[in-house]
Amino acid sequence: MDDTTGEMLGYTMETLLQAGALDVSFTPIYMKKNRPAIKLEVISEEDKADQLQKLILTETSTIGLRLRKAQRLVMKRKNLPVETEFGIISVKEARWEQIVKYAPEYEDCRKAAREHGVSLAEVYRKAEEACYQTEEGKK
Amino acid sequence: MDDTTGEMLGYTMETLLQAGALDVSFTPIYMKKNRPAIKLEVISEEDKADQLQKLILTETSTIGLRLRKAQRLVMKRKNLPVETEFGIISVKEARWEQIVKYAPEYEDCRKAAREHGVSLAEVYRKAEEACYQTEEGKK
Amino acid sequence: MDDTTGEMLGYTMETLLQAGALDVSFTPIYMKKNRPAIKLEVISEEDKADQLQKLILTETSTIGLRLRKAQRLVMKRKNLPVETEFGIISVKEARWEQIVKYAPEYEDCRKAAREHGVSLAEVYRKAEEACYQTEEGKK
Amino acid sequence: MDDTTGEMLGYTMETLLQAGALDVSFTPIYMKKNRPAIKLEVISEEDKADQLQKLILTETSTIGLRLRKAQRLVMKRKNLPVETEFGIISVKEARWEQIVKYAPEYEDCRKAAREHGVSLAEVYRKAEEACYQTEEGKK
Amino acid sequence: MDDTTGEMLGYTMETLLQAGALDVSFTPIYMKKNRPAIKLEVISEEDKADQLQKLILTETSTIGLRLRKAQRLVMKRKNLPVETEFGIISVKEARWEQIVKYAPEYEDCRKAAREHGVSLAEVYRKAEEACYQTEEGKK
Amino acid sequence: MDDTTGEMLGYTMETLLQAGALDVSFTPIYMKKNRPAIKLEVISEEDKADQLQKLILTETSTIGLRLRKAQRLVMKRKNLPVETEFGIISVKEARWEQIVKYAPEYEDCRKAAREHGVSLAEVYRKAEEACYQTEEGKK
Ligand code: NI
Ligand code: NI
Ligand code: NI
Ligand code: NI
Ligand code: NI
Ligand code: NI
Ligand code: NI
Ligand code: NI
Ligand code: NI
Ligand code: NI
Ligand code: NI
Ligand code: NI
Repeated sequence: MDDTTGEMLGYTMETLLQAGALDVSFTPIYMKKNRPAIKLEVISEEDKADQLQKLILTETSTIGLRLRKAQRLVMKRKNLPVETEFGIISVKEARWEQIVKYAPEYEDCRKAAREHGVSLAEVYRKAEEACYQTEEGKK
Repeated sequence: MDDTTGEMLGYTMETLLQAGALDVSFTPIYMKKNRPAIKLEVISEEDKADQLQKLILTETSTIGLRLRKAQRLVMKRKNLPVETEFGIISVKEARWEQIVKYAPEYEDCRKAAREHGVSLAEVYRKAEEACYQTEEGKK
Repeated sequence: MDDTTGEMLGYTMETLLQAGALDVSFTPIYMKKNRPAIKLEVISEEDKADQLQKLILTETSTIGLRLRKAQRLVMKRKNLPVETEFGIISVKEARWEQIVKYAPEYEDCRKAAREHGVSLAEVYRKAEEACYQTEEGKK
Repeated sequence: MDDTTGEMLGYTMETLLQAGALDVSFTPIYMKKNRPAIKLEVISEEDKADQLQKLILTETSTIGLRLRKAQRLVMKRKNLPVETEFGIISVKEARWEQIVKYAPEYEDCRKAAREHGVSLAEVYRKAEEACYQTEEGKK
Repeated sequence: MDDTTGEMLGYTMETLLQAGALDVSFTPIYMKKNRPAIKLEVISEEDKADQLQKLILTETSTIGLRLRKAQRLVMKRKNLPVETEFGIISVKEARWEQIVKYAPEYEDCRKAAREHGVSLAEVYRKAEEACYQTEEGKK
Repeated sequence: MDDTTGEMLGYTMETLLQAGALDVSFTPIYMKKNRPAIKLEVISEEDKADQLQKLILTETSTIGLRLRKAQRLVMKRKNLPVETEFGIISVKEARWEQIVKYAPEYEDCRKAAREHGVSLAEVYRKAEEACYQTEEGKK
């Protein structure tokens, strides 16, 4: 899109996520006539596609868009609470075959960092540490 | 592409558009061995694909490309002239279900801005204003 | 800038170059509230700075800009015509200490490529070859 | 920065703005060993520099930063309320020599768009229209 | 990906290429909550897809990925050695219909530039010159 | 730079780092005539500036560059070895006022990950854990 402003696009991202988009991203691209532009990509379940498409046409200057089906591989997820010195933090555990990953919930960590006057990185570190200790305890 | 220069790519974009590409864009990407590179994307009708493909292989250093069909949703367009204090400006009207959008033609606005010594933004604003007044007049 | 469109920025670049800017570039950046944005950079002689600054404030949405003096090192340049099978092409020769570089003029090469139905890269290659042959002849 | 995550950087931007930074932006860059990275730029008044600098060192992985003074040219700003069919919207008027610009306040427009079920662009358009009508009324 | 660092991604690129990926690239994108992020794209033969996919899930923070089949058009390639004043350089010749292109092997040129104390550009130029002379000799 | 290839730039980065540059980065920018381009930035001690500058003019197509002095704030660094189940890893400790940070050495972690068949992230995690345990032991 080369005729929408960044302000409109920031609003559009927020609106698409509220309407149920799984993921929204912007990629900077270059178009004809020396125009810096932005490609908007939205990932959604098939049954939401119609509504999101309408939203994009309403909120942005674009007059066309492309639809593509894609196969997705997603790890199985589960939320688990862990105890840290900054309170209880929810962690998203993801598993697929032998692979296990932990991702502390951003909003929980953010709140804890603010409340306890520490850096976000420190809260993440403690939450991850707690996950790995629990995991080793199980073995 | 990591072995073509920006100058060649600028020329390639111009050439592809002249040959009938619907849209051409560049995306900055990162490749192996610390190489900044550019992804060239071209959208075209199916019957032009062969010619454009040949053009890309001729003008750039690439030795391979990927083809993908995509479903497109495009709003119905119509050109309409509107009167402004800077002369007549052609406006592209786009409609789809309830959504209506107006996009003043860039080349008309550019010429008017130059001739009348005003900013491009002012010409756009006046052309859009004229569209919306006409639309409200109809109701 | 997060409240100007790509169309306006493309026009601004063209206008700044016509008004005597030495170089104009756009850098994609990310601003608050999820806004993709563009940083406009203009290089100019000091005596043009005032006029270009006014132009930026007129044509874009920005309400502020930053000025910085910088020391520049520029190689000494000379234009020289070279003969190729695609006609005479002007080449920019740049020298500094032992370093010599040749840059065929884009507009000449572009015209020759179109007239002779060859790729731009081929015209560049022939023009550069002619430069290096002349240089070796001199030794 | 090539060893901080996007999540940390998003948090850092929010934190810097809350602490009084005038502007914060990210630029995508390429670093050695094929690493995509981000340059963080912060503009601030001189008296806030120390605090913001400390914040950057606390919240991100960086172990060094560069300071540069720059001369700024900023248009004179004033807030003015305008009446629209979507309620009263605050508009930022900016003036410098003959140049006048209007920028409707994002947060006001956003709220109005949500409340009235219209697109953000429509609210902006109506607020700008109101500004220009007032201005012409004054002449 | 918004929760992996550039260091991890640089390593992942190296690892994917060693495991047989045909091409790996990063594209800078913008995600929600002001997060600068990176899209990782990998092109591979179908029979390697499973292994590479597992590698991505192991080395990065991502918990999901998308798979897409694409039709590829690749020019026919052949390696040919050419003699230059900097030693023998391997050149990749690519052909498709009437189009012929030469790409000197990067690693050969790099080594020759270092050994002979000349710029990489000079080695490339000499290797390309040798290719085109051979080609014209054949006619 | 709009007339150098990504391959040349990748080589230039490597060469600048070997010649003692403190940091080298590329930023994707957009130049006139629809040219995607790259800005090369090099940070160096003042006494290396001359040599690096010459190197840039030799290896790239640029015919000019800009020099800027900047004040730098750098945390005090110290290397310390830590023991992990993957062997001894060197960690860079950085301190400034109350702030302490640990950055495991990339090359050590990379080697350990390869030797022990684990992900790079796991090696980093263990090395960081060892640092924080040592630190808490001291209190
Ligand atoms: Ni347009
Ligand atoms: Ni608490
Ligand atoms: Ni190559
Ligand atoms: Ni007129
Ligand atoms: Ni704004
Ligand atoms: Ni001719
Ligand atoms: Ni590091
Ligand atoms: Ni209301
Ligand atoms: Ni996350
Ligand atoms: Ni040799
Ligand atoms: Ni040039
Ligand atoms: Ni070991």
